[in-house]
Amino acid sequence: MSDPAGTTTAAASPVGLHRVLEPAGVLPQAATRLDTRRELWPDEVRVRVERLNLDAASFRQLERKHRDKGGNAGSAVRAEVLAIVAARGKMQNPETGSGGMLVGTVEEVGERSPLGLSVGDRVATLVSLTLTPLVIEDGLADWDGRSEQVPADGYAILFGRSIAARLPDDLAPELALAVMDVCGAPALTARVVGQYEEPVVAVVGAAGKSGSLSLVAARDAGAARTIGVVPVATEADLLSGAGLADVVTLADARDPVALAEAVTAAGGPADVTVVCVDVPGCEGGAILATADGGTVIFFSMATSFSAAALGAEGLAADVTMLVGNGYVPGHADYALELLRGHDGVRTLFERRL
Amino acid sequence: MSDPAGTTTAAASPVGLHRVLEPAGVLPQAATRLDTRRELWPDEVRVRVERLNLDAASFRQLERKHRDKGGNAGSAVRAEVLAIVAARGKMQNPETGSGGMLVGTVEEVGERSPLGLSVGDRVATLVSLTLTPLVIEDGLADWDGRSEQVPADGYAILFGRSIAARLPDDLAPELALAVMDVCGAPALTARVVGQYEEPVVAVVGAAGKSGSLSLVAARDAGAARTIGVVPVATEADLLSGAGLADVVTLADARDPVALAEAVTAAGGPADVTVVCVDVPGCEGGAILATADGGTVIFFSMATSFSAAALGAEGLAADVTMLVGNGYVPGHADYALELLRGHDGVRTLFERRL
Repeated sequence: MSDPAGTTTAAASPVGLHRVLEPAGVLPQAATRLDTRRELWPDEVRVRVERLNLDAASFRQLERKHRDKGGNAGSAVRAEVLAIVAARGKMQNPETGSGGMLVGTVEEVGERSPLGLSVGDRVATLVSLTLTPLVIEDGLADWDGRSEQVPADGYAILFGRSIAARLPDDLAPELALAVMDVCGAPALTARVVGQYEEPVVAVVGAAGKSGSLSLVAARDAGAARTIGVVPVATEADLLSGAGLADVVTLADARDPVALAEAVTAAGGPADVTVVCVDVPGCEGGAILATADGGTVIFFSMATSFSAAALGAEGLAADVTMLVGNGYVPGHADYALELLRGHDGVRTLFERRL
Repeated sequence: MSDPAGTTTAAASPVGLHRVLEPAGVLPQAATRLDTRRELWPDEVRVRVERLNLDAASFRQLERKHRDKGGNAGSAVRAEVLAIVAARGKMQNPETGSGGMLVGTVEEVGERSPLGLSVGDRVATLVSLTLTPLVIEDGLADWDGRSEQVPADGYAILFGRSIAARLPDDLAPELALAVMDVCGAPALTARVVGQYEEPVVAVVGAAGKSGSLSLVAARDAGAARTIGVVPVATEADLLSGAGLADVVTLADARDPVALAEAVTAAGGPADVTVVCVDVPGCEGGAILATADGGTVIFFSMATSFSAAALGAEGLAADVTMLVGNGYVPGHADYALELLRGHDGVRTLFERRL
């Protein structure tokens, strides 16, 4: 299957089906084991890995599990990550189902790769580690197992339809990564806001990473008024200081009446409501805060599909409800541009690094 | 609070917040106890109940729980439904969280009710029993506890923003109810299809109630080609016989590659994919079967929010994903019209009664 350049010529699937070993027929994300062979199919790219960024939920689960081991907790976490990657051919926490991202340098580009990358490019992957073939070659010797940031040497494979972004030269890599991690939110927010005439836009969880970027994306896309909703006064002060919203208001997003009243008092109801808070139970409030004919975009992974569907029906609310898709073409560049153009966003991000 | 006509005059909330007893501040659907007082607030309507239609998932759970009681299983189920309604002031199964619908006759209309109903109208409620104040007055004496169809005497309260539809004179009540139960699907499908120019529309689970209505709604709204996906040959025969789809194709919706290939071979990828199958794990296939720029509408309550969100991101799929909202203005009338106009739909529905 290999030609002398190390590129196999058999047909590859752009979504990586040819790398799925078990179970047969599923997508790489659902696979329990991926083929990590070093040789590339013609549309693939191999990346020399520098660092993994484990998903926060995954790292916390591993940390909790091994906490009782005292001084050895870090090594136990490290050993488990190594074992997972060895067994699955990818980093996907079996408990949380989540992965993370990676940073590295392009090592080889298949002749038919559509990704536009060149050998030597420093990139971050924007598809999850849960579907990325990965081999670790240094035993994670430089990692103490005590942080989500994992220095690593090894390689990873990108498929034809994977997404990777070049790290920009003008931003610290940690900052660029933090922006790329949530870059789907501002891109989709801008697209939806652009479908309305001078809409009122409410962002719930507005002082966070995806929230602050969504606020400036809304303004950029023509919102007539932006409302930033936060749960506590310290966040309200931060957000007001950053100057990203026309109005900043306090409300517990899990309290539907309080949320709807706060948004209304701030100039709502909203034509577009963007939910960026990672706590369950915000569906009803988001629906109530939104005008008939409006749209709710749910970016929180804590969103319950049935609570949203039954909630809107129960309220006879004629609102469009979107599952926040993390992929929109051009999303990484757009989010980095927003950060560069808004010191307030940059300040909020840098506080979190 | 009551005037002589039995109508209280204090301010009412159109979504029924004034009827929530516990816990304070939540919406009626999330409440553990509702106020069932007979007297109406000015925008409410009281309905004399004839029959409850318990949600299928709820009834099956009750049946399973009491199965071991042999000859008394039916009475045990009946006793539990009575206990739930007495304790909560509404019929909401604490295990499944679901309710059902009811049929009855309008008994009194508050002077400021916006619902357009008159005393004597025979109606079905289109909001869930999980948020409808309900009192049962006959001990469910005419119900054997062995069917989802519950003859009942008592009353229920509709809020200003509740939805109820008059039962049509030309259709059997069971048939009309079965249509109304899924009427959000064809209405939203038609709206989304109308946003595209001559789209290809795939309906997954096309021989079911919401699926068959969505198919004809798609054609009605201008689809250039409709593809009906079903899992087994008997359903394919039924659907072909009904003449509702341009192409009928077989695929297991949980197998993403098989589903995408079947839709593509039938003239896809789809611009609009409508998911109407109530099994988990259909998100990836629906996304893969949909063209870039297309829309997936998820009507199945088995949809996983995170599987949809992460799935699209992992596939770099630029698709819009909608949470199927059960409410669209005019949905009941539109669905009944589709049934009247398509003998094939009617036949599929009548087979299921």
